[in-house]
Amino acid sequence: MNAQTTPVTSPDSRQPGFVLPVRIYYEDTDAGGVVYYANYLRFCERGRSEWLRELGFSQKQLLESGGPLFVISKVQADYLASARLDDKLEVVTTLHDLHGASVWFTQRILREGKPVFVAEIKIVCVDTGTGRPTPWPAAVYKRFQDQLITT
Amino acid sequence: MNAQTTPVTSPDSRQPGFVLPVRIYYEDTDAGGVVYYANYLRFCERGRSEWLRELGFSQKQLLESGGPLFVISKVQADYLASARLDDKLEVVTTLHDLHGASVWFTQRILREGKPVFVAEIKIVCVDTGTGRPTPWPAAVYKRFQDQLITT
Amino acid sequence: MNAQTTPVTSPDSRQPGFVLPVRIYYEDTDAGGVVYYANYLRFCERGRSEWLRELGFSQKQLLESGGPLFVISKVQADYLASARLDDKLEVVTTLHDLHGASVWFTQRILREGKPVFVAEIKIVCVDTGTGRPTPWPAAVYKRFQDQLITT
Amino acid sequence: MNAQTTPVTSPDSRQPGFVLPVRIYYEDTDAGGVVYYANYLRFCERGRSEWLRELGFSQKQLLESGGPLFVISKVQADYLASARLDDKLEVVTTLHDLHGASVWFTQRILREGKPVFVAEIKIVCVDTGTGRPTPWPAAVYKRFQDQLITT
Repeated sequence: MNAQTTPVTSPDSRQPGFVLPVRIYYEDTDAGGVVYYANYLRFCERGRSEWLRELGFSQKQLLESGGPLFVISKVQADYLASARLDDKLEVVTTLHDLHGASVWFTQRILREGKPVFVAEIKIVCVDTGTGRPTPWPAAVYKRFQDQLITT
Repeated sequence: MNAQTTPVTSPDSRQPGFVLPVRIYYEDTDAGGVVYYANYLRFCERGRSEWLRELGFSQKQLLESGGPLFVISKVQADYLASARLDDKLEVVTTLHDLHGASVWFTQRILREGKPVFVAEIKIVCVDTGTGRPTPWPAAVYKRFQDQLITT
Repeated sequence: MNAQTTPVTSPDSRQPGFVLPVRIYYEDTDAGGVVYYANYLRFCERGRSEWLRELGFSQKQLLESGGPLFVISKVQADYLASARLDDKLEVVTTLHDLHGASVWFTQRILREGKPVFVAEIKIVCVDTGTGRPTPWPAAVYKRFQDQLITT
Repeated sequence: MNAQTTPVTSPDSRQPGFVLPVRIYYEDTDAGGVVYYANYLRFCERGRSEWLRELGFSQKQLLESGGPLFVISKVQADYLASARLDDKLEVVTTLHDLHGASVWFTQRILREGKPVFVAEIKIVCVDTGTGRPTPWPAAVYKRFQDQLITT
């Protein structure tokens, strides 16, 4: 099995959530010698995708079913350190503020347990026909509720 | 000459700032049929790069001189609409909140004058040796001051 | 108007073809300080897209019409030099070996008239339903014929 | 441990070589609903990077040591099928035609054991000072020799 789909325990015991390991390759870096700033959002999306897969949801099925799309609405990101070539990072994904047609994710990207990037990302459930927000399918809402981090 | 380096007047007369045209290609889109969310940050960086070039600053010289780096510190982005293949967008870049070692950019990405993406992006001037914030070089600070949008 | 869609004369007078200017940004480079090798194929696709637009074909219309897709079949690329941050390149696109359901492009990426990358790229016309090769639409075939470089 | 760094046996028993699993995310796809053609080269580079790591070579150390760079010289690629969102692919990397200052890789990208992409990629050992080809370091040459596929 591919560890890319395996949730593991975060090295940071204060940080629950779904953890996806990400290795940094040349494709991720820029001439400054560090990871290009937009690429952290690629890693976050990998984390959300594997988290959804873990919950039993296939984005491919959602896409092909013509069902509602999960659309990015807001990104609030803090760049705390610079990741570099060959770094082994961990994307830690947690859920909070679940609403009828939207939800906020907190995604922390760690290197050796220390955050290099932290983002709050709002996803909205959008009807593919109207392009307007629409309530989460009941099964999705229920699964998201189970995942809420209560603090 | 290449329009990529030519500031033009925004179609939105209420919006001053430096305008860079960006065309959407297959590389920018994803299987959802729209521009992949991280790629708007690529377009913003093109806008900032051409704006800096317009001010007479070469990022390549800054990089090779070992001088201070302009490092992304924060991104606060709102996704307002979905850009698609072949769209002609405009990245409108303005400057505000200039401080001794940091500055905020507002970058609006427009299609036919209507915003599809708006971001507030904080850049910090960082000493390449220490990795710590360091005051803007005087010449940079002066040029940035000239560009401040006063509202 | 956006020079990205303007064919211009190549600085290399021995080189006919459609020329698209491309500027190198941080997004295009890697930690080696040069353009990441896969990205030259992004620039080639921009060149083919603008060349098609120049011929009057919209890839978006082709995509949305459910009409045949132009699918990459082969890439034979030579890396001759390294492009770097801020470089102004030109993608020179020419057509040869037009067949009933396929065609070869030669795409040369130049810096100051000297090639840094040259590729032969085979495109096949594919029926979206069957996924099999299908003859070029007559209008496309005719336009491609007009563009053939006879040597 | 992260399977991204774990060689596993290919499902295709006729295919020796180093195998890296790759999952397809939205970032890898385009509006055509398939993996964007340049991205297969990103996957190939991940495969070569993990293969080098498996041999005990760190590209980061090579980069920071100012030692010779491994530079892409040629890519000859055949696109055989279209990978899609959520696909689990395997990048199978083998070595052949080892010369004093260059080497050819064969990289096959498989889905359920069937090839979707195959490339022959020539890498040259280049002196960072002169930018000219230079002999492989003895340790590298020896390890490459051990990996040669003799057919």
